[in-house]
Amino acid sequence: MKELALIKLEERGVTVDDIATIVLDLQRNYQDVTLEDCRATVLSIISKSETIYTILTGIAIDVAAEKGLLDTEINSLIAKDYGLYGLDEILALSIVNMNGSIALTNFGYLDKTKPGIIGVIDKEGKSEAKCHTFLDDIICAIASSAASRIAHRMEKK
Amino acid sequence: MKELALIKLEERGVTVDDIATIVLDLQRNYQDVTLEDCRATVLSIISKSETIYTILTGIAIDVAAEKGLLDTEINSLIAKDYGLYGLDEILALSIVNMNGSIALTNFGYLDKTKPGIIGVIDKEGKSEAKCHTFLDDIICAIASSAASRIAHRMEKK
Amino acid sequence: MKELALIKLEERGVTVDDIATIVLDLQRNYQDVTLEDCRATVLSIISKSETIYTILTGIAIDVAAEKGLLDTEINSLIAKDYGLYGLDEILALSIVNMNGSIALTNFGYLDKTKPGIIGVIDKEGKSEAKCHTFLDDIICAIASSAASRIAHRMEKK
Amino acid sequence: MKELALIKLEERGVTVDDIATIVLDLQRNYQDVTLEDCRATVLSIISKSETIYTILTGIAIDVAAEKGLLDTEINSLIAKDYGLYGLDEILALSIVNMNGSIALTNFGYLDKTKPGIIGVIDKEGKSEAKCHTFLDDIICAIASSAASRIAHRMEKK
Repeated sequence: MKELALIKLEERGVTVDDIATIVLDLQRNYQDVTLEDCRATVLSIISKSETIYTILTGIAIDVAAEKGLLDTEINSLIAKDYGLYGLDEILALSIVNMNGSIALTNFGYLDKTKPGIIGVIDKEGKSEAKCHTFLDDIICAIASSAASRIAHRMEKK
Repeated sequence: MKELALIKLEERGVTVDDIATIVLDLQRNYQDVTLEDCRATVLSIISKSETIYTILTGIAIDVAAEKGLLDTEINSLIAKDYGLYGLDEILALSIVNMNGSIALTNFGYLDKTKPGIIGVIDKEGKSEAKCHTFLDDIICAIASSAASRIAHRMEKK
Repeated sequence: MKELALIKLEERGVTVDDIATIVLDLQRNYQDVTLEDCRATVLSIISKSETIYTILTGIAIDVAAEKGLLDTEINSLIAKDYGLYGLDEILALSIVNMNGSIALTNFGYLDKTKPGIIGVIDKEGKSEAKCHTFLDDIICAIASSAASRIAHRMEKK
Repeated sequence: MKELALIKLEERGVTVDDIATIVLDLQRNYQDVTLEDCRATVLSIISKSETIYTILTGIAIDVAAEKGLLDTEINSLIAKDYGLYGLDEILALSIVNMNGSIALTNFGYLDKTKPGIIGVIDKEGKSEAKCHTFLDDIICAIASSAASRIAHRMEKK
């Protein structure tokens, strides 16, 4: 199902390179790291079944909200990315939690500062036509988890 | 939206009393507590916006999976309540986390032992016609959170 | 025990106003909020038993590490605020989790950017004489939880 | 530091086999698994740096409370394993979170039912002479994480 997750991400406007670029920006101040390292680590995070399920479930909810398939009240909250909804961040914890404390703090940081593709997706999701309420948090989770894994790996050298 | 959450729970086969009964069984060995206390506390947990959003979102996913509206692969995992899917437990953490450590340990205990309505819903959800993958964990979360709150409240007396 | 928690914070160099200033900076872009609001909300977060226990436990570990009372290896990791240690962030989750998703993302943001007293404490903790490994994360947790509570409260108006 | 963690566990009365026995009891209803598998998986969980830090930190707090080295109020809460203290469960999440949803639900289940060495340690910790407030939750975390890892591994066959 990993291929499906990657296809879904692309269909929604997100490439592995978009995420790898964020990881590189997070870690380059701390470590000697290349975009290629970041790309490989992002792919390795996306290969885990927890990540695949989260990508597929989160995008499925976004698309359902986009099409207005959910009950009116909850559809409206999700479609407008209501700030106090909160389940988008919770779902993304399925990825973040597996990757330790550095993933957790970077997750919050990315969610607030929205660099690169995160900001693009967030902005597009706030338009009428698109809903990316779950997707932007999932990208934050993948990027912060990749950053955490690189930090841990470099440590061991 | 609290009324809507209660209506949705009933439509899916769960009443406040079903949940209160589980809470009573959890706490009666530790405290002098009545079904009426448990009922009021369950209602108070369900009144919080985090709980309402979780109920509405979780049931929306269950119903979508029941109708086969999601992508084939993820629809199949959710519909059969696949044991390693894991996002049902994660989503329920939105309720559990707000209520402290006693909620957390009781949540795991209820999820494993499936007393009362939890077992009924879990079993029904494993039939072809119904999907309760998210709902049973949400009930565990509400019951364990209510138990935690009662434990904390009694302490203060 | 709330008074004890406040005394301990002050002994270690942190006042309620230091934390309230960070909360004000977090929320003033979103809401009409005063330092007085922030101060009251910080005090209300500190009044909860979970927060009190976390403050007292975290500072107790910091002081023990400062005095070299723990086993050599773990004492050394804590005393130097080793980046991959991670239990300081985990302990602070006892406060953050109770306050929802906005607390979680702000927690990560504050932990990375270290504004105000957080940076002061972090820097002092990296000197030989002092250890604030747990304390700086606890301040991040209190400030982000207060910000979350203000965000939720304003919403209800 | 893995050797030190194993030595500390033994000094406090816990062997790898004690934990492996609990894992076997958790998983034998679901899978064809041997005590040897469980032993190897427990050792692999204990080899991770997050687990090592948690074992060393948790036991350090237990021992400090045993000796009365912490501030009076918090020392008293920890020494008597006060039910609403809650930081013992939180610290153990550093291990549980890394191992997914099955670890989380088994953690709560073990913490409530206290099979085998968990009950022995819990009971001993409630005597005057000993404090195992953090240790019993750490054992629950290691056992539930090992069970989760075995469940995931078998799935892949």
